[in-house]
Amino acid sequence: MEVGKRRPAVTELLTDRYQLTMAYSYFKQGKHNTEAVFDAYFRKCPFKGEFVIAAGLESVIQHVANFKFSPEEIEYLKADLETDDPAFFEYLATLDGSKVRIYAIPEGCLVFPSEPLVRVEGPLALVQILETTILNLLNFPSLIATNARRMKNVAGPDKVLVEFGLRRAQGPDGAMMASQYSYLGGFHGTSNLAAGKEYGIQTFGTMAHSYICSYTSLEEIKETKIDGKDLKEEALKARKELGFENTNEGELAAFIAYAVNHPKNFVALVDTYDTMSSGVPNYICVAVGLKRIGQTPRGIRLDSGDLAGLSIKSKKLIEECGQKAGVDLSNPVIFASNDINEDSLLDLNHKGHEVTSFGIGTNLVTCQKQPALGMVYKLVELKGYPRIKFSEEVGKIPIPGRKQLYRLWAKKDGYPSFDVLALPDEKIQEGETIRVRDFVHRTERFIITPEKVEDLLPLVWDGKLTKKLPNLHEAREYSEIAINHFDPEVLHPTKPKKYHVYLTEKLYNLVYQMVEDITIWKEVK
Amino acid sequence: MEVGKRRPAVTELLTDRYQLTMAYSYFKQGKHNTEAVFDAYFRKCPFKGEFVIAAGLESVIQHVANFKFSPEEIEYLKADLETDDPAFFEYLATLDGSKVRIYAIPEGCLVFPSEPLVRVEGPLALVQILETTILNLLNFPSLIATNARRMKNVAGPDKVLVEFGLRRAQGPDGAMMASQYSYLGGFHGTSNLAAGKEYGIQTFGTMAHSYICSYTSLEEIKETKIDGKDLKEEALKARKELGFENTNEGELAAFIAYAVNHPKNFVALVDTYDTMSSGVPNYICVAVGLKRIGQTPRGIRLDSGDLAGLSIKSKKLIEECGQKAGVDLSNPVIFASNDINEDSLLDLNHKGHEVTSFGIGTNLVTCQKQPALGMVYKLVELKGYPRIKFSEEVGKIPIPGRKQLYRLWAKKDGYPSFDVLALPDEKIQEGETIRVRDFVHRTERFIITPEKVEDLLPLVWDGKLTKKLPNLHEAREYSEIAINHFDPEVLHPTKPKKYHVYLTEKLYNLVYQMVEDITIWKEVK
Repeated sequence: MEVGKRRPAVTELLTDRYQLTMAYSYFKQGKHNTEAVFDAYFRKCPFKGEFVIAAGLESVIQHVANFKFSPEEIEYLKADLETDDPAFFEYLATLDGSKVRIYAIPEGCLVFPSEPLVRVEGPLALVQILETTILNLLNFPSLIATNARRMKNVAGPDKVLVEFGLRRAQGPDGAMMASQYSYLGGFHGTSNLAAGKEYGIQTFGTMAHSYICSYTSLEEIKETKIDGKDLKEEALKARKELGFENTNEGELAAFIAYAVNHPKNFVALVDTYDTMSSGVPNYICVAVGLKRIGQTPRGIRLDSGDLAGLSIKSKKLIEECGQKAGVDLSNPVIFASNDINEDSLLDLNHKGHEVTSFGIGTNLVTCQKQPALGMVYKLVELKGYPRIKFSEEVGKIPIPGRKQLYRLWAKKDGYPSFDVLALPDEKIQEGETIRVRDFVHRTERFIITPEKVEDLLPLVWDGKLTKKLPNLHEAREYSEIAINHFDPEVLHPTKPKKYHVYLTEKLYNLVYQMVEDITIWKEVK
Repeated sequence: MEVGKRRPAVTELLTDRYQLTMAYSYFKQGKHNTEAVFDAYFRKCPFKGEFVIAAGLESVIQHVANFKFSPEEIEYLKADLETDDPAFFEYLATLDGSKVRIYAIPEGCLVFPSEPLVRVEGPLALVQILETTILNLLNFPSLIATNARRMKNVAGPDKVLVEFGLRRAQGPDGAMMASQYSYLGGFHGTSNLAAGKEYGIQTFGTMAHSYICSYTSLEEIKETKIDGKDLKEEALKARKELGFENTNEGELAAFIAYAVNHPKNFVALVDTYDTMSSGVPNYICVAVGLKRIGQTPRGIRLDSGDLAGLSIKSKKLIEECGQKAGVDLSNPVIFASNDINEDSLLDLNHKGHEVTSFGIGTNLVTCQKQPALGMVYKLVELKGYPRIKFSEEVGKIPIPGRKQLYRLWAKKDGYPSFDVLALPDEKIQEGETIRVRDFVHRTERFIITPEKVEDLLPLVWDGKLTKKLPNLHEAREYSEIAINHFDPEVLHPTKPKKYHVYLTEKLYNLVYQMVEDITIWKEVK
């Protein structure tokens, strides 16, 4: 199976300096090859929600598969680190992904706090060096996919959602990731041509304000005919019939020119001068003209003002004028695209609207509401022994041990009941009763006999790929199905229900024994 | 002069689809080679501030210098666009940066709303296609540089500021840009080794919690000596002397091991078990040990809890114990690094603290407070005639015309008085009196005879580089000097004073004449 190249800018050195200073010390202390287990997980769902869509695994695998310090990178490290010990640099040059194992949640799967998106196992120094890169490659993809899914949930299944954020994204590859992972989260396409080419995503886009401003009069249109039929003539006739002669002439010219050159994809941007007094009437003139010469206009794009009200008013005007002119202009595409975010989508739903498609940029691609997912990567086992880091806040203590993750179904509603973290020697099986507890709320304990169990942390990399990874389109479909089979209350945009992740009794006891052992006795003075 | 390669992921197709559909229509209507002028500017400063640091120019120039559709890109467009007109694709294949002119604000300069960061001139279709890429390459760099500068202003000139955001950044190149442009904005370094190598920035970093958790007992340290002197022995002696025997032993072991391997850069992470009852005492034992064998410990890193209080308490304890042990541990490095942002820096200042260095991650690199700068790219002139887009909100109307930008000094305080946008035939010169007006507040009008005038929009690209671009370090220095010569009230973190950008009388009159001409007469029904 082909793993492919790494993302742009991903190198062995795309990691924190301390990974290398630690690696050096591990090496000098003879610990570098000790078997270690790290979990990458988050503590809190973003956007005040109760779910995350796991994403970014392919890039992680590509990094591990291609990992090998180049001589040039080694030279840099020799100059940067406070050592010139040749044995260490020779050792670094030998490192690659062959001794690494990665267990991972499937791409596009719903994932919850404390659940490892990946469990990374291998020689301590190496899997330590991988930390920062792995987090970078999982954090933003998962955040974007989640943000996109939330917006899709609010917009509803019948709306077309297009990612429009390239110009405002956090850098070129930030934009590429935004296109890729908003598609994973359920968007239909992007304005970004490079993403269209790279990921096979549908691209969208017709015209900008500058196109409209580039025309000032009807005389400037050079080509006016489609298949020998004069659109300019027809549009001007319709303009007169409908009494739209006070609209901006440059705008009308631009619409005619665009429709002549793109008769199958005429979506007019209508707010350059005045949406209801110029843009929509000009659209109607051209749309009537197109209809009369046997073409099909598509609709309009609203880019400012009260999108709810304007969508209703413009749809009404378009359909009425169509009737008046004796052509069918019903159900136009109404694209909306002005600084849309989850809240404005909710607001549009609340007000009622006729928007059919949304172009969402800044707030989608930069995740304005919460621009980072705080995923962490914690040492949970070394040399076969569980490891723990203390915190006075119990919820912040990483759950120690090499853990498996299961999703359990027990209820008649068909939704998953909860997830369970278990130690590797605990096999959780359909029809077998187990006891589970809540890590923080110590009085919550449950007995369950699951009807269905899904192992959510299969081995995907063991020096080589051990499982075919889905492509982006397959992962998107998998995600869509998973979402549709989940309790909608967990996905609710404003009042989500918590989905629980419990610990098996054995794991729970291990954690609290370890907490007991490491809690410092403070001397009272 | 060498321009260099483009950033990763930057290609001709890293643009919005509509740029190409418009380009096709321009081509068919014979407008594609019409001379056009676009301005890239923002309308509002981010972070509730009153300034922005301009950044990203080098990447823009690299894009334009390397611009050339590849046969593969052309093939993609043939399949994606709604045309198979061979003449268009032949034309696309001829496009390059040779006919483009770019006027740009110097990298690192302070810039204000409505001021073009770049003015791009050239054939309409080509400079239209460049829009999205140029915005992408300017928006995030300027946002990051501004965010970094704001944090630096609050932290104060004597603090060491290190960018720690790689793991949470919006993708690999998002991280690289964050390292690069937070350095431009005044940060001293980064944890990101790839950025260290690529940009020649100093890297920082010592140890993570996992390193500490990898030790559970003192027996695990294999190498205990520095230049033949046993640090473990010395540290345990100090531990006994100082009565710190209840601390976590694994943590102490980790500190000793790290100090043995990095005797010149021992900065201990002290919050793994308990900062004041274990971490700091363990640091002190090792620091005393190091001192007694002729080495110099550096200090500690606080990564949780009340950073202000802990920095004061730990400094006191470290210095007192040093005195007790008869060694000088005064003025330790106190690194703080827990979710720091501008507000928490202000809060630390308010409370008082002893932190000497800040490691700032998530909130710096994703610009949590405002993750996007809303820069736009507007057509302002075509074929020598100014162009305008209407908005009912006057402040949103792009200022038409091919404009120059000047910074004027007239007051005795030595600070710039204000900036002025002027038409190209208006020469603004030292000692010559001019009249300027505010674009939005029409009653504000001023007469000024500047003592000093700076042309802020020089030509930097005219088919080739026309001016040496500064490297990152030069731009950082330029920015530092500009900041130090600016009115500090404009830079104030919470109550900034507005710095004004006025229009010459001639430009002002042009704008309002055009607004008059394009405002739609709405029919009252």
